[in-house]
Amino acid sequence: MLDYFFNPKSLAIIGASSNTNKGGYHILKNVTAGFRGKIYPVNKSYTEILGLPCYPDVASIPGNIDLAIYFIPSKGLPHTVTECAKKGVKGIIIESGGFNESGEEGAKLQKLALENAAKAGIRLWGPNCMGFIDAHRTHVFSFINSAVWPDVLRAGNVGLIVQSGMLSAGFLLHALQEGVMGVSKVCSIGNKCDIDESDILEYMIQDKETEVIACYLESLVDGRRFTGLAKKTKKPVIVIMGGRSSEGAKAAQSHTASLSGNYQVTSGAFRQAGIIEVFDPAELTDMARAFSKKMICHPGGGTAILTFSGGAGTITTDLMDDCGLELAKLSEKTLASIAELFPPWNKPDHPLDLWIAIERHGYEKVFKRSFDAVINDPAVDSIIFHSYATPLIGPKFFEELAALVKKHEKPVVIWAAGRRDFADNLRAMAETAGFPAYRELGRCVTVLNGIKRHFTKKPIN
Amino acid sequence: MLDYFFNPKSLAIIGASSNTNKGGYHILKNVTAGFRGKIYPVNKSYTEILGLPCYPDVASIPGNIDLAIYFIPSKGLPHTVTECAKKGVKGIIIESGGFNESGEEGAKLQKLALENAAKAGIRLWGPNCMGFIDAHRTHVFSFINSAVWPDVLRAGNVGLIVQSGMLSAGFLLHALQEGVMGVSKVCSIGNKCDIDESDILEYMIQDKETEVIACYLESLVDGRRFTGLAKKTKKPVIVIMGGRSSEGAKAAQSHTASLSGNYQVTSGAFRQAGIIEVFDPAELTDMARAFSKKMICHPGGGTAILTFSGGAGTITTDLMDDCGLELAKLSEKTLASIAELFPPWNKPDHPLDLWIAIERHGYEKVFKRSFDAVINDPAVDSIIFHSYATPLIGPKFFEELAALVKKHEKPVVIWAAGRRDFADNLRAMAETAGFPAYRELGRCVTVLNGIKRHFTKKPIN
Repeated sequence: MLDYFFNPKSLAIIGASSNTNKGGYHILKNVTAGFRGKIYPVNKSYTEILGLPCYPDVASIPGNIDLAIYFIPSKGLPHTVTECAKKGVKGIIIESGGFNESGEEGAKLQKLALENAAKAGIRLWGPNCMGFIDAHRTHVFSFINSAVWPDVLRAGNVGLIVQSGMLSAGFLLHALQEGVMGVSKVCSIGNKCDIDESDILEYMIQDKETEVIACYLESLVDGRRFTGLAKKTKKPVIVIMGGRSSEGAKAAQSHTASLSGNYQVTSGAFRQAGIIEVFDPAELTDMARAFSKKMICHPGGGTAILTFSGGAGTITTDLMDDCGLELAKLSEKTLASIAELFPPWNKPDHPLDLWIAIERHGYEKVFKRSFDAVINDPAVDSIIFHSYATPLIGPKFFEELAALVKKHEKPVVIWAAGRRDFADNLRAMAETAGFPAYRELGRCVTVLNGIKRHFTKKPIN
Repeated sequence: MLDYFFNPKSLAIIGASSNTNKGGYHILKNVTAGFRGKIYPVNKSYTEILGLPCYPDVASIPGNIDLAIYFIPSKGLPHTVTECAKKGVKGIIIESGGFNESGEEGAKLQKLALENAAKAGIRLWGPNCMGFIDAHRTHVFSFINSAVWPDVLRAGNVGLIVQSGMLSAGFLLHALQEGVMGVSKVCSIGNKCDIDESDILEYMIQDKETEVIACYLESLVDGRRFTGLAKKTKKPVIVIMGGRSSEGAKAAQSHTASLSGNYQVTSGAFRQAGIIEVFDPAELTDMARAFSKKMICHPGGGTAILTFSGGAGTITTDLMDDCGLELAKLSEKTLASIAELFPPWNKPDHPLDLWIAIERHGYEKVFKRSFDAVINDPAVDSIIFHSYATPLIGPKFFEELAALVKKHEKPVVIWAAGRRDFADNLRAMAETAGFPAYRELGRCVTVLNGIKRHFTKKPIN
């Protein structure tokens, strides 16, 4: 099932180039970085590229081939498909544009290629896409710049399905650099003339390395199949739809030739299927990153807020209310235990503004004691923790909190506030220990809301 | 009018300390950094601090004093006010807590102090606040850590009014480090038993160094006065209200003893007065920073989107639609001029996905030509520009765009996407040239919406 795309034994690169300014160079360079099967560059102009023999056409390649990557002008595709059929090719990733998204002529080419492929039993991926990356095997079957990804690619459990070329590259970089998160597979599906979002979703649901699935889509080829698949899996499926508005839908059409359906209907079906809908690419990566930490939630109580700033506590409460998250009703016992850190003239209230206690006992002691108190409170099912960014808090602190989170199965999202250098450092420590951490309050609340909604729809037990 | 707070000739610091872990140390240290008037530390336990003679009490200070900063336990305040009256003090900034926000006993102290002050004609600032910073004069009359602010403080044109201690410190750091923005005055007003948001707003409206006013408030002492002042000024007034929700309102009450009124009424009055309301502290600093660039808008047309990613263009269009921003209807002439950069089989459409042209002609040429074309289109009143973060774009590029923006008086917001190191560099270049730049699409749209709404309510001519 699509394994010949992800794990082919042999691969032809039609349009390989030795010109480092061209995508055809980067595809070959990327493929050689990790793919251990046979690689056949195809280009009339060369006899050798990067030390590999280069073939003038597909027919000249000795023996059969599993997969081809197509990166020459669109007009050659229908013929190439027929040539590929003769070499036993099972799948073609078409990374060139110039098809449905570019007008009548391109649409004819796409249709003809598809017909030829159907006759030969070849599956087509794309066209007008960036192919995919499998981070665990370092299979980079894409024209993404070969100088860019090696620094940032990190194997992990997030699968991305993206119907946009540049955006998938952007997503990838953003996702990988904004915090600690790794990807399993990043799939750019473009015009999806054949292989569509549901095919990839189905593959990722079965894929052991993928535990979270995040999608940018401009249309659903088969909405019922997509939501049906999402409904059945326990893996979180997060989607941002492009073309929600009528002007946006027009833009999507010229981008990937997508005809978006009725957005309201789609959005409702997502909700019913337990799909987490987001509205900004940053939200998509925030959410995916949070789920990648595998925090568990048993919804039923409310959210506790630990803060060092009364104002930030108030705003967090407001933002939670905006999306229907409730403030936990802390027990008398919890409040009394935290009150021991406070002077008698100042009793803690919820949201817990801990500043006065911190002045007396220091950050770590106060944060730890309060954290321990609230996570043990049965009325609390989740925590938003505002951590002041100070060098006085070290990695061990977050590791200890992480152990508590694991034990109690209550998700915790961290707001890192303060000087940028300290905050960046604090975020890195928190993320490494397994916490999603952000520098904006709104992002913390949005992410926690996503986690709670997911586990409400799809409880652990 | 409040000048004795901002520009006193002499200043007593009641509760000065030589213990570097105490706020009383930082106040004194901060004051000595830039204040050139007379400084009188007051503390029974010392005869000298930081080389300055220290007095056991206010009465012992030789001669009269303009301003006092109070940073000892709350119970001493009523008596201190009376002592200050005898020394001609005109204003007291009370940075200690333990007043209305902490229960009945504290409320009594606040009331008594206020009565004593009223009798003597002394104005009280606070209590339960962090005082203020005047960045142009380096007057730091606050217990903010003296090691933290010198690295980041930058004089500029944004005035902040903040009803939260830690949040004002956090705001400040965030605002100053997130992009290029400087502050005129940052005022933390706490319980505002006397000096309130309207007093400071009025001062900032007259203040030549302040061109943008940003507020975090948990209540309005006199809503009519506040909105009346905001309505009359052309300076943008941006407000985030804490306590919008009922749970948030309770939190605000325990934080600064604020009784928030009916939020819906307040929000409506804000809209009518042309106040820009925001909902996240990050949004407040984003918006303030954007206005600090002094871009002008003549609303009437739509927004042009220049992008390198069809997906990002689509999402931007959707996000614009969410807040009522319209996509500009580009003229045939504009589209034709940009089409010259494209191959014949791919005509540009709006949003302008420039990727194919960039592959042919490079970033700078394509971005510049397209930018020039859209900014000259009468149907365009503003631009969202997605700039791919690449070392191929240099500072001169943004300076040239900035000159066009100035000439045409059409605001431009930039999305910087790509690898983090490149994107951070690109953002810095763009910000330095005078563009608000963000790494999230949603932030670009929110900010542009704020700018357009402001100039719709308060046109330039």
